[in-house]
Formats: sequence, structure tokens, C-alpha cells
Amino acid sequence: MTLAEPTTAVDPMTSPFMKVLVALQRAEDAYGVWEGKSDAELLRDFIVTKEQRREIPIISDPDPDVLARVEKFYQAVGLTIERVTGLMASPMMKMSHEGFGRVVLTTGKLVVYSKSLRDVHRFGFDDLAKLSSEGMKAVDKAAETIATYPEVAAA
Amino acid sequence: MTLAEPTTAVDPMTSPFMKVLVALQRAEDAYGVWEGKSDAELLRDFIVTKEQRREIPIISDPDPDVLARVEKFYQAVGLTIERVTGLMASPMMKMSHEGFGRVVLTTGKLVVYSKSLRDVHRFGFDDLAKLSSEGMKAVDKAAETIATYPEVAAA
Repeated sequence: MTLAEPTTAVDPMTSPFMKVLVALQRAEDAYGVWEGKSDAELLRDFIVTKEQRREIPIISDPDPDVLARVEKFYQAVGLTIERVTGLMASPMMKMSHEGFGRVVLTTGKLVVYSKSLRDVHRFGFDDLAKLSSEGMKAVDKAAETIATYPEVAAA
Repeated sequence: MTLAEPTTAVDPMTSPFMKVLVALQRAEDAYGVWEGKSDAELLRDFIVTKEQRREIPIISDPDPDVLARVEKFYQAVGLTIERVTGLMASPMMKMSHEGFGRVVLTTGKLVVYSKSLRDVHRFGFDDLAKLSSEGMKAVDKAAETIATYPEVAAA
């Protein structure tokens, strides 16, 4: 019997969140132009390294592509919550000004997840592992909130 | 002793909701150009009669002025909830397409009010009494939800 290498990480692409996010991306590909692309390639725009992040100015309103990406991230969180808990979670995002905003996900009368957004211009993750873990962290938090107040989530 | 006329309605301008809505309007008047206007005049754009409503086409996206008015209505609902219950209620509105959308007001982890919006192009009320009663109806519903789940509203 051999012990697994302690550094052997689970493939981030296999997490429930990443599967949903990839499916959302592929759903937009009505003409099949991305068919030859790998799942990881499809998520490339979600990856922004620390160095890249520093170079993005945070003045004025973020670009619509970034906003669409933030929306898609939370849409994927919502759909993954549904897979995990069986309850639909609808995201709502509100940007106020200059990259500040708020996102909430609700299930029934319950706010299952809520987060203040800032510096949305720089939205992105160091690598795929980080993208997966941040997505799953939001899903787990929501599932926990649903478990705490099941009657409100069902209301 | 005389009996009050059964048709004597309470002045709609005195409801907590209307006072807040008027205050929100006046807060925008940085240069005092509306100082000579009555409260009722300031709310004139919220009044859309049935006849006027029929004439407004419901194709394409609603005009930004209408959207701003819908937002202000729910902002006033949120602030009135705070006056009535002592708990802050934040509105979030999301328009999807062609006048369809959704508004939610949350307090802590509780969704205190939620409504699907449609035909937002025609947003408006028959008269001031209706504007007041619809605003107060939303406030009362939210206050009732908070009373049902006080621990979630405080979470």
C-alpha cells in the first residue's frame, strides 16, 4: 500500500460548482465555435493573477464583460446550491457605482448568501483551484444557512 | 355628536409611506427649484390613470425615468419599514428584459418582501390614495414577515 502524495490536489474541474460554471459557458455557445476548447480554456477569463490584478485600474465603472462574469459566477453558485440542496436559489446583483455593489441569493424567504462587492474591475481568481474553492465556499455557506433555517427557505 | 361621513377618506399624504416618498423627492432638489411645489405635485409622475396606462406601449425596455421611479417607490417602502419596525430593509431590483423583473427587500437574512415586476413601462397608480395604500400594503406585509421570523430578520 502506498500513501497518496500529500501535495496531490483533487482536480478543481470536478467540483460541482465548476461543472455548473462550464455548463453555463457552453450553453452560450449556440454555434459550436468553442467545441474544440477544453473546459479549462472556457474559464480562462475568470483567472486573473495578482500581477494582472494590480495593473487593472479601479476608476470609473467596470466594463460590462466583467459584470457579466460576476453575474455568471453567482448564477453558477445559485444553480450549484440547487443541485446540492434541491432548493432553487436566485441571485440578484446590484452595482451602485465605481465597482461597488452587492449580491444576494435567496431561497424562499431566506437570504442564503449575501456579499458586498468592491473593486469589481479586478474580479477574478488566481487559478482554477481558487475559482473552484471560492465557488464551493459560497455554496457551502448557503447550504449551511438553509440547514439552519429550513422553514424559512421553504416559505 | 355627529358621525363622520363614511366617505371621508384619510388624507393619503399623511401615511408614513407618503411622508418618506416626499422626503426622498425633496432630497433630490439640491437647488431648491421645487420649493414652491406642493407635496402632491412632487409625486405627480407616480400617478398614471387607467386611460394613460393603456396608451403606453409595452415594447422594448422601459425608459430610465420609469425605472428610477420604481426604484424610488421600493426605496421608500424600505425606509418606511425601518421607521415602522426599527429594522433596516434594503431593496434590490433586477430588470431582466422588456419591463420584466423582480424586486426584493431584505432585513438580516430575511426576505421581507418580494415581487415580480411586469409591464414596468406602465408603472404608476390611479391616484394619490392608491399610491399610499399600495406603499403601505408592502410595508405592512414586510412588517408581518418580520414579526413571523424575528430571529432571521436579526441574523
